[in-house]
Amino acid sequence: MRVLLTVSYDGTDYCGWQRQKNGISVQQKLEEALSKLYTEQVEVRGSSRTDSGVHALGQGVLAVLKDNISCDKIPRAVNTFLPKTIRVVGAREVKESFHPQYSVIDKTYTYKIQNADYPNPLLYNYSCFEHVPLNEKLMREGASYLIGEHDFKAFCSADTSAKTTVRTIYSINITREGDIITITIKGSGFLYNMVRIIVGTLIEVGKGKYLPSYIGEILNSRDRRKAGKTVIPNGLTLMEVNYNE
Amino acid sequence: MRVLLTVSYDGTDYCGWQRQKNGISVQQKLEEALSKLYTEQVEVRGSSRTDSGVHALGQGVLAVLKDNISCDKIPRAVNTFLPKTIRVVGAREVKESFHPQYSVIDKTYTYKIQNADYPNPLLYNYSCFEHVPLNEKLMREGASYLIGEHDFKAFCSADTSAKTTVRTIYSINITREGDIITITIKGSGFLYNMVRIIVGTLIEVGKGKYLPSYIGEILNSRDRRKAGKTVIPNGLTLMEVNYNE
Repeated sequence: MRVLLTVSYDGTDYCGWQRQKNGISVQQKLEEALSKLYTEQVEVRGSSRTDSGVHALGQGVLAVLKDNISCDKIPRAVNTFLPKTIRVVGAREVKESFHPQYSVIDKTYTYKIQNADYPNPLLYNYSCFEHVPLNEKLMREGASYLIGEHDFKAFCSADTSAKTTVRTIYSINITREGDIITITIKGSGFLYNMVRIIVGTLIEVGKGKYLPSYIGEILNSRDRRKAGKTVIPNGLTLMEVNYNE
Repeated sequence: MRVLLTVSYDGTDYCGWQRQKNGISVQQKLEEALSKLYTEQVEVRGSSRTDSGVHALGQGVLAVLKDNISCDKIPRAVNTFLPKTIRVVGAREVKESFHPQYSVIDKTYTYKIQNADYPNPLLYNYSCFEHVPLNEKLMREGASYLIGEHDFKAFCSADTSAKTTVRTIYSINITREGDIITITIKGSGFLYNMVRIIVGTLIEVGKGKYLPSYIGEILNSRDRRKAGKTVIPNGLTLMEVNYNE
């Protein structure tokens, strides 16, 4: 049967989701665990290629599995073979037509920024640190220019292999709780490093270095050099993937 | 001058606060950083011996330092020599009479419990996991028996070297936010593993295995075997130390 797994992981100690020759990936660990559980070689396909250091609370993963374990039993069974930093938290059967990438309707990421005088070391692996006070109101105004269907070439790493750089952002929510600013972005899909470049640019707006309206100019320029820097992966978490099936 | 440093650290990768022959301690890292900054051997003394895996957001540390760097400049200066998992977040001069242990009025610890169907791997190093639903109301009722001055022998690891097992607990607050239960304990001081044994016992109360009033019986018995298990260090954080000076 074709099973869609929901997978959470702490990306700190992995070279990212995708199998790599040099480094241990989440995909490798998950395939090893499933292969042990099913006593046969199992391969899986993820919906998002999260980078090294990027976390997930809701990565979608397709696996073709024997039907000797019912879906509600799969998470606990496979978790016994996984390291503590990776957990399968859901499993459901999907149709033959389901594709882990093409069936995606939207994805949601969060990015956490510590905005304080000194960093909290307990959040080091889960945030970026910025001691200059950030104005979230300006950041929200800047973010509004990104909502909708746009060519996001300026917010994409130069070494992209994407056929088109047009994507749709459905929403960007920016909230502050104490020293922690959380940026939640929902979109049809994201280009390579797109969320991290958007966050790096919004930080410049929050500092008052860029006017909010300058985000619109960056977008129109389609020039990566105009946007802010790519922030560290630590603060990024893939929260949810929704599918059309 | 005598300087009281406030130090935060992620205890995951350290053998605890105190210097050890086998393993890297927070104290060692801090002494190395201060010795580099002041170009002379600096030794420090902490207010709490946190165990391996235990975190701190407000450990108090006494250092005797040359007065060539003003207190407000010390944190940033020493942080440049520290790993990202340790941060000095405050520094103030204290009197000759100040003692990092005997001048303590109270200490506050928090312990985080993940109470959900599946663990969130991002919280693995910062909580313990319990999938049986816990009733915080019962836990609060149980905790009330611990408030005040008591002989906490039943809530102390057998291998203690403490002269007396009498301590005072000023308050225990138990709150839930979604899947996370946070237990905040403030006391005059804590015996070896005391907070972790209290939490292990309150979890049994939350599960309904012990009646809340049984906590009073455990206390009176002075028998470690009657209390719950010692929960893992991951969930424990030293939040604050207050001093009389």
